[in-house]
Amino acid sequence: MRVPEIDTLAIVGLGLIGSSIARGARQYGLAKSIVAIDRDPAVLERVRALGLADSVTDAVAEGVANADLVILCTPVGAVGAVAEAMGGALKTGAIVSDVGSVKGSVVAAVSPHLPEGVAFVPAHPVAGTEYSGPDAGFSTLFSGRWCILTPPEGTSPEAVARVQAFWEGLGAIVESMTPEHHDLVLAITSHVPHLIAYNIVGTAADLEEVTQSEVIKFSAGGFRDFTRIAASDPTMWRDVFLTNKDAVLEMLGRFNEDLAALARAIRWGDGDALHELFTRTRTIRRGIVALGQETAEPDFGRGRPSGTPVSKPD
Amino acid sequence: MRVPEIDTLAIVGLGLIGSSIARGARQYGLAKSIVAIDRDPAVLERVRALGLADSVTDAVAEGVANADLVILCTPVGAVGAVAEAMGGALKTGAIVSDVGSVKGSVVAAVSPHLPEGVAFVPAHPVAGTEYSGPDAGFSTLFSGRWCILTPPEGTSPEAVARVQAFWEGLGAIVESMTPEHHDLVLAITSHVPHLIAYNIVGTAADLEEVTQSEVIKFSAGGFRDFTRIAASDPTMWRDVFLTNKDAVLEMLGRFNEDLAALARAIRWGDGDALHELFTRTRTIRRGIVALGQETAEPDFGRGRPSGTPVSKPD
Repeated sequence: MRVPEIDTLAIVGLGLIGSSIARGARQYGLAKSIVAIDRDPAVLERVRALGLADSVTDAVAEGVANADLVILCTPVGAVGAVAEAMGGALKTGAIVSDVGSVKGSVVAAVSPHLPEGVAFVPAHPVAGTEYSGPDAGFSTLFSGRWCILTPPEGTSPEAVARVQAFWEGLGAIVESMTPEHHDLVLAITSHVPHLIAYNIVGTAADLEEVTQSEVIKFSAGGFRDFTRIAASDPTMWRDVFLTNKDAVLEMLGRFNEDLAALARAIRWGDGDALHELFTRTRTIRRGIVALGQETAEPDFGRGRPSGTPVSKPD
Repeated sequence: MRVPEIDTLAIVGLGLIGSSIARGARQYGLAKSIVAIDRDPAVLERVRALGLADSVTDAVAEGVANADLVILCTPVGAVGAVAEAMGGALKTGAIVSDVGSVKGSVVAAVSPHLPEGVAFVPAHPVAGTEYSGPDAGFSTLFSGRWCILTPPEGTSPEAVARVQAFWEGLGAIVESMTPEHHDLVLAITSHVPHLIAYNIVGTAADLEEVTQSEVIKFSAGGFRDFTRIAASDPTMWRDVFLTNKDAVLEMLGRFNEDLAALARAIRWGDGDALHELFTRTRTIRRGIVALGQETAEPDFGRGRPSGTPVSKPD
């Protein structure tokens, strides 16, 4: 499939996601020209050095003035201010999109600042790593991953099709739903998992009876898995929890009810209840592997860590 | 370092851990002869087909009769019955060890059944994958991983040194502590992480508003990481929670207190508290990576999953 090329693509925020879009758009020929916009001079310097864009600027209104597609890749707490700063500078026919992990609050924050004749097609590529910044991005980040669009009612179907084609050009699989449903789905598949990962890493760090050195040494028993997502970008995740509060607290409530029942089963020695749950949870992973969303390799196929010299019999 | 060879090594339970020990002992020349003991005929059949041992049997007393080192690799709930069945058959000077993830209850269950002249050196290699059974093992599973010994007071120092040398021969780093401290350390670095992983996968499977298909599709947002450890062996983990109840409930209590504070910070919009925690948790991961207990590769370095054909511009 030949994806229609965008004349000028503007990316606001060149972190992991923004810089991966820039790399992918160039590699797959999705845009004739790329403008990189970021308020951080250090980021712009890296973008220049890495050659990720045709032009770079910290002036958002100036940067988007000629853009056909503008993608907001800042933390979700910042999109409202960016939209306000750039709204008046957008040309008629431009399309604005974003990559935020929360959609209801983004629609509410961005829409009021966009002029007539500019379409807003909110998007969320469900992809990422625990690293941040323009050096962390790569062009295949979205390959085989879902990208969820949540166009408000009345959005131009042509604009939606354009954004869909762009994400398909980056290798993503596109699906649409309402912002409200998106926020509920992501609360359980992404936000609450991050919250409990951050939480257990914090709990482990604060113990008196077990030293931090012991937690680190014996982390291969399971704990280290949680530290990966608990190393994700702090600003991005602060904003996610503040802007998807209701869905996160609702899903966390469910999690807590189930955990209380599990603790009760342990206290009362109900081995059958434990065994039943532990058997059921295997099925879900098989589904994820079968759908190509996860590797079937043991231990994620992670390389044997180096750094611990091991003496072996000769 | 030349590890002193064991004449006859008996392994009871040829699952992931037992079969990895068999493979490693042979590959690194740690035992002249290996006896594989398992009550499951299907497991013994696989052990024969894979050539993991010199002899195989389902009769534990007969299997251990000539052994110099016996390693119990069954779920921890079964070690007492195995010890009882084999106790009278052990030869004087034999050493018994195990690989259980819980140590206090194992010492209590095994020790009474061992005769005079037989040393018990409990061990726990902190290593594993989410796969089970004799086909899942591999000889380098313990390479660079910690193995914790918890010898009861009065255990023969020669026996402890022998078991330590055996684990070092398998590539592990050996450390000793009391059973009680082990059970507390592992409760936070392994048992509670498994519990909350099992729990969130169960919560996600039971929602009405979000379908299982959506949970699977959008799992790359974080959820899929939890499904790996929630795919671990159900019987092994049931026994862990039932036999390390006190430490697990104590650590789970800490986890819950911290989670309640985090939920409160979300409800009241305390972004600074969230950001502070999310920044602090990054440090712990860096420590784990620096110690060689984890890969620094983004996303665990996991291979890009296949199975989702992606159309690309030509």
